[in-house]
Amino acid sequence: MAVDLAALVAGLEQGERRALARLLTVVEDGSVEQLREVIGALHPRTGRARVLGISGSPGVGKSTLTDAIATQLRAAGRSVAILAVDPSSPFSGGALLGDRIRMQGHHADPGVFIRSMASRGHLGGLSFATPQAVVVLDAAGFDDVIIETVGVGQSEVEIAATADTTLIALAPGMGDGVQAAKAGILEVADVFVINKADAAGAGRLESELRGMLELGHATAGEEGEAGWWPPILRTVAVRGEGITEVVGAIDAHTDHLDAAGGGRVRRHARVRHLIRELALEATRRTFARLAEGEDDLLDALTARVEGRELDPYTAADELLAASRSAAG
Amino acid sequence: MAVDLAALVAGLEQGERRALARLLTVVEDGSVEQLREVIGALHPRTGRARVLGISGSPGVGKSTLTDAIATQLRAAGRSVAILAVDPSSPFSGGALLGDRIRMQGHHADPGVFIRSMASRGHLGGLSFATPQAVVVLDAAGFDDVIIETVGVGQSEVEIAATADTTLIALAPGMGDGVQAAKAGILEVADVFVINKADAAGAGRLESELRGMLELGHATAGEEGEAGWWPPILRTVAVRGEGITEVVGAIDAHTDHLDAAGGGRVRRHARVRHLIRELALEATRRTFARLAEGEDDLLDALTARVEGRELDPYTAADELLAASRSAAG
Repeated sequence: MAVDLAALVAGLEQGERRALARLLTVVEDGSVEQLREVIGALHPRTGRARVLGISGSPGVGKSTLTDAIATQLRAAGRSVAILAVDPSSPFSGGALLGDRIRMQGHHADPGVFIRSMASRGHLGGLSFATPQAVVVLDAAGFDDVIIETVGVGQSEVEIAATADTTLIALAPGMGDGVQAAKAGILEVADVFVINKADAAGAGRLESELRGMLELGHATAGEEGEAGWWPPILRTVAVRGEGITEVVGAIDAHTDHLDAAGGGRVRRHARVRHLIRELALEATRRTFARLAEGEDDLLDALTARVEGRELDPYTAADELLAASRSAAG
Repeated sequence: MAVDLAALVAGLEQGERRALARLLTVVEDGSVEQLREVIGALHPRTGRARVLGISGSPGVGKSTLTDAIATQLRAAGRSVAILAVDPSSPFSGGALLGDRIRMQGHHADPGVFIRSMASRGHLGGLSFATPQAVVVLDAAGFDDVIIETVGVGQSEVEIAATADTTLIALAPGMGDGVQAAKAGILEVADVFVINKADAAGAGRLESELRGMLELGHATAGEEGEAGWWPPILRTVAVRGEGITEVVGAIDAHTDHLDAAGGGRVRRHARVRHLIRELALEATRRTFARLAEGEDDLLDALTARVEGRELDPYTAADELLAASRSAAG
């Protein structure tokens, strides 16, 4: 991909949407050298955006909820970027089509930007690409950056590492509260939303969730931001019901973070997470380089493990030693 | 955790269930030194088990389906271990309770073993612990090891790296086929199961899925094991309907792998994956060691990035350089 990165960065500074879109493509598909140049240039322009994470299982109505929240934030005069993070899919065309359909709800509004991202390209996948896409959107000057992910477990934890406020969406009948607990979402949520609250079972879901939150609180003790107890709100996002209250809860959480100095703490955590992800990705890249071609070291080590000549840990030690030499 | 690992390994060789359970606890919670000793001792005894992955979103009825498949495999005279992999949860007590309830269906049958695993403990989480738990269960002599995971996207890909045969479970009304495609499950599935097939929408889900498989096939070209086209089967697991056909499809896939030499190829891929995960985990551990206490290097680097003195990539370079010295 031959691109004039300096021109794109200059274009971004002048608010050009095309430059923004192309820089996000570099984040998703570009070489690490290109990424390094882009992040290096944009990093001084970051630190202003509020980052919201919205996550939940397939079918809870995340996209509709996200769009309704974005509309409400727009009404309050804030510019909004939505990063819809999809796990790897061979059908990236579908994601692009989805963007276009969703954009129709915000057509001709330059204060809303929607982008889908799939985990192709980099070895570290979305946990590597997402925080860097947030850097680009932050530098582009959006007031709010919403990261919307399909997710159970792992991805919510990664969202929470990048977001200022994490919102977990549930819906009645989509797997019960016990499954929500299994998925490990309870610790990372700042706000819970029960969408499709007009469907049967919303009340039961809410009381199960409330019970588990209390149990978790009793088990885990007082962790996280002292004094914040995640509210549980009900919405019917397709009809816009309950959205004002959700945005109110998000704003209240922002105020809470600001009052406690937590905004700074979370931004610090976000940079810390980014640095570690970049270092891990570099390590994966070194491993990948050692594991390709005719001198595939990993293949040789695997054969020796299969021949019972090495155990897997000793093989991993040899891979690490080789990567230290290779990275030198 | 002071444990006599040699005694546990000896106990495992004599078929003691208590030794098996305690070794799995070491995999989940033990130190890396303990793990290294366990895997080193057990590795020579592995390579016999067939590893099945069963995955799907919350609510599709995975546990019921898994139990029904296990019952059918038992009827064919095979011993079965089920590893129920849950994303991190603060409620590990819940997982244990779940095991006990599920075991009641197989009570007094020494040929079935069920264990839930949560991603506490190690930095690499379940992608690190799961392949090692499989080593323990393989060494314990089970004919079939079933890894059951809640998952969307990432976790299925990791299952496929460890499993011989990957089964993806769907259900009508749990998010439509387009969402299945988004979740990136199409490339990794060897067998699709539409559970709750007596519910409305099963036919539509099947035809959507079939359409996407054909589209994906056309897009991605002929990848994977040549000559295997993943079947789509329907079950009502709570009533045991369709399970014989599912086990038939799994056995057919095993035969297919064996005929093509693919069993060997997949086992090679599994060991390769394990070695790389161990090396990555060692890297994460080194990073964690550098990022704790009063000399927290990652904290210092983060502060310099926040002060715009470094960009995040240069900070990652410094973390890597320090980790190379520290690991020496």
